[in-house]
Amino acid sequence: MAPPSVLTPRALDFPRWYQEVVAKAELAEGGPVRGTMVVRPYGYAIWERIQAELDRRIKALGAKNAYFPLLIPESFLRREAEHVEGFSPELAVVTHGGGKALEEPVVIRPTSETVINASFARWIQSHRDLPLMVNQWANVVRWELRPRLFLRTTEFLWHEAHTAHASAEEAAALARRVVRQVYQDLCEEILGIPVLVGRKTQRERFAGASATWTCEAMMGDGKALQMATSHELGQNFAKVFDITFSDESGERQLVWQTSWGASTRLMGALVMAHGDDAGLRLPPPVAPVQVVVLVARAGEGVAEAAHQLTQDLERAGVRAQLDDRPEPSFGRRVVDWELKGVPLRVELGPRDLAEGRAVVVRRDQAGKASLPLGQLAREVPALLDQVHQGLRAAAAEHLAGRTRRVEDLAGVLAAAREGFAAVPLDALGDEGEAALNAEGVTVRLVRRPDGQLPADEDPPAALEAVCARAY
Amino acid sequence: MAPPSVLTPRALDFPRWYQEVVAKAELAEGGPVRGTMVVRPYGYAIWERIQAELDRRIKALGAKNAYFPLLIPESFLRREAEHVEGFSPELAVVTHGGGKALEEPVVIRPTSETVINASFARWIQSHRDLPLMVNQWANVVRWELRPRLFLRTTEFLWHEAHTAHASAEEAAALARRVVRQVYQDLCEEILGIPVLVGRKTQRERFAGASATWTCEAMMGDGKALQMATSHELGQNFAKVFDITFSDESGERQLVWQTSWGASTRLMGALVMAHGDDAGLRLPPPVAPVQVVVLVARAGEGVAEAAHQLTQDLERAGVRAQLDDRPEPSFGRRVVDWELKGVPLRVELGPRDLAEGRAVVVRRDQAGKASLPLGQLAREVPALLDQVHQGLRAAAAEHLAGRTRRVEDLAGVLAAAREGFAAVPLDALGDEGEAALNAEGVTVRLVRRPDGQLPADEDPPAALEAVCARAY
Repeated sequence: MAPPSVLTPRALDFPRWYQEVVAKAELAEGGPVRGTMVVRPYGYAIWERIQAELDRRIKALGAKNAYFPLLIPESFLRREAEHVEGFSPELAVVTHGGGKALEEPVVIRPTSETVINASFARWIQSHRDLPLMVNQWANVVRWELRPRLFLRTTEFLWHEAHTAHASAEEAAALARRVVRQVYQDLCEEILGIPVLVGRKTQRERFAGASATWTCEAMMGDGKALQMATSHELGQNFAKVFDITFSDESGERQLVWQTSWGASTRLMGALVMAHGDDAGLRLPPPVAPVQVVVLVARAGEGVAEAAHQLTQDLERAGVRAQLDDRPEPSFGRRVVDWELKGVPLRVELGPRDLAEGRAVVVRRDQAGKASLPLGQLAREVPALLDQVHQGLRAAAAEHLAGRTRRVEDLAGVLAAAREGFAAVPLDALGDEGEAALNAEGVTVRLVRRPDGQLPADEDPPAALEAVCARAY
Repeated sequence: MAPPSVLTPRALDFPRWYQEVVAKAELAEGGPVRGTMVVRPYGYAIWERIQAELDRRIKALGAKNAYFPLLIPESFLRREAEHVEGFSPELAVVTHGGGKALEEPVVIRPTSETVINASFARWIQSHRDLPLMVNQWANVVRWELRPRLFLRTTEFLWHEAHTAHASAEEAAALARRVVRQVYQDLCEEILGIPVLVGRKTQRERFAGASATWTCEAMMGDGKALQMATSHELGQNFAKVFDITFSDESGERQLVWQTSWGASTRLMGALVMAHGDDAGLRLPPPVAPVQVVVLVARAGEGVAEAAHQLTQDLERAGVRAQLDDRPEPSFGRRVVDWELKGVPLRVELGPRDLAEGRAVVVRRDQAGKASLPLGQLAREVPALLDQVHQGLRAAAAEHLAGRTRRVEDLAGVLAAAREGFAAVPLDALGDEGEAALNAEGVTVRLVRRPDGQLPADEDPPAALEAVCARAY
């Protein structure tokens, strides 16, 4: 609906369209140090709602929030061999503090396994201290050579949860439960983005994990975005940090652990999964403004009626904003609100008011409806729900339409030009995966063909690999 | 009430008592890098409530949350002369990133004036963009040689708000409003800690500010703690970062600015303002557990009744926790809950149950009361309010009892051994202030003798300086 001049069309240049939406909707901008990001107030208001929804789900599982230091001794990271290998190339190193060179350099946390487990070793003594489930909201730094706002930034915001359990089974069950009850639920119910869930291959899993579970979504250009991951860490960190408990018979045992996280990357997913050529399209649960009440043209009583309607909507629990600015022009203001992805727009002018009606425009579909003014505050909550379902259905249709079942490597490469390729795992193998990687295609996850999570005892023949180009 | 062996008595060694409370109530512990801090789940749950209360007040003033980068080019800090002089000795410097030496070192933010104002310069064009009010919740790093948990740590958590205005008057009015409506209100209504408000002297004000407003509270040992500050920045940063707007007649003008913040230091204030020889005493609005329901002795139906009561309390909107653990002993559990500062304790045993009653113990005063079980859920909210008022009254009495009006330097030094000294400003002067500093006493604030904020036109003779030893 926006004039073609506002944004580069998605079909023409998707990455450029993305950059423009992030900038023009005032979500974020680059910081002065290369790769860093300023999250602007409008973007942060969306992030705060994602945070609140995640926080509720994390706490519902029994985890408690805490905070661990930003700065970690370099030696801590070296204790777990795979972990340091995975993160070394991305570290930011502090060599001077308080005007002096430090005796031992410290790194800015790229993730907090090491520093949190040093505390766990002190906090856990007995089986009565287990399970221990801790979450933190924090910034982390991983030096990024090809930054892209929200998707890959040198500093990003995330939550990271870390847990310790008395048995391998309990840890494994939690890691799986997290990917369903925390992440898939958030993505689908709140963000309106359908996801595939499954296990990462050995090549793709987290540095130091024995298994990584993932949620993967399809973006508007058919590429995959990893939305969140949940790791079984086995006893790798427990051995290194000596995290033991006395079991019920008094024997010392090593704990079994998990860690899981989701980041400001989800903001990029919102843009790329729902956005159209007019800009953002925000799911109502995370929209800072759910309804904008727009004075289309001034006239007797119009401003007052618009103001009254805004108040009525707020009283109905809707996040409503009045736009009665005399400038810029009505058309320009419409374009701006569409860019910002506001789910519902109510337009009110003298003629509407004379008829006791207002024009309602849904951001998820073309066309306008005229509704009696007096009913609006009552009907808007249902309309918002319809917008949410509309966005979600469109994303589900896009995912289904661009996912193909194929039988071999050639099939994967062809399908990955458009979207996702599901291939029998035994037609792929580690060599096949390496060949795909050389072509820029990765295995996003391994699952059962019916969409269920794989079990340890499943033979490769019973599983499929979902492959795609990815962000 | 706790056995004397649990904590060092406050009167014997206040700093040691403080350390022990922070450790034994499981609020925080030191991190692996000297001066850093782990905020444990119980401590963080308190901080989350302080955050929520602050966030609500900040947003009520019209500020919006955003997020700015952790890493700042060293050259940014050098742009404002006083600012860099103030912070240079405390900086943590990153010299390597992504496996390479950086061309220009970057510092970890000690505060965000410089990086935020670089964004403000882009965001502000017209008078219609003003006032611009932005807040961020973030970690900052100031290298600390004599760390003490919550009070002085190398990394701490805080909020920092930054605003830009079209006139000096508007900025000055906001800086004063903040110290009253955000900080004093939080301290007194939520934390139950009475504060004095006033202006810092030139020696004590923020590096780069033209005026600093402060809230100061008295701790249990009579020393002062700065709870929060609000700065008028004038046009210092606007000049350096070229933050201008076109006014209504189209002329370019520099903006006028403020910045204000409060940190995890407030956690230290809670401990030191309210704590007693048995441990923490938490104001109910920030207590993670407001009521603990304690099974004093097992018996028929006791566990069930305690469970039921806990549920009834939760339904009444109270944060209640059941403690029906068979061990440790009842006495030990009482000591633990007192250490953790839970405002109300309900004890239930077989004899109480037979009489249809329960024992209620307030954490703010000695003595026990017996109340009918059936009335408890209804009466607890009022009891919690009484505990809150009880703690607040005790702190107010302590402050009044240890504040003395004196006439000269000798009087200040004598009074500051016990608490606060209020001295006529013209009896002090800058030389007098230097002499006090040499003795470890500082001017905490300047105010009118009736407690009101000083105005620019007030002569020194109309003002008093409140002096104290301080954390």
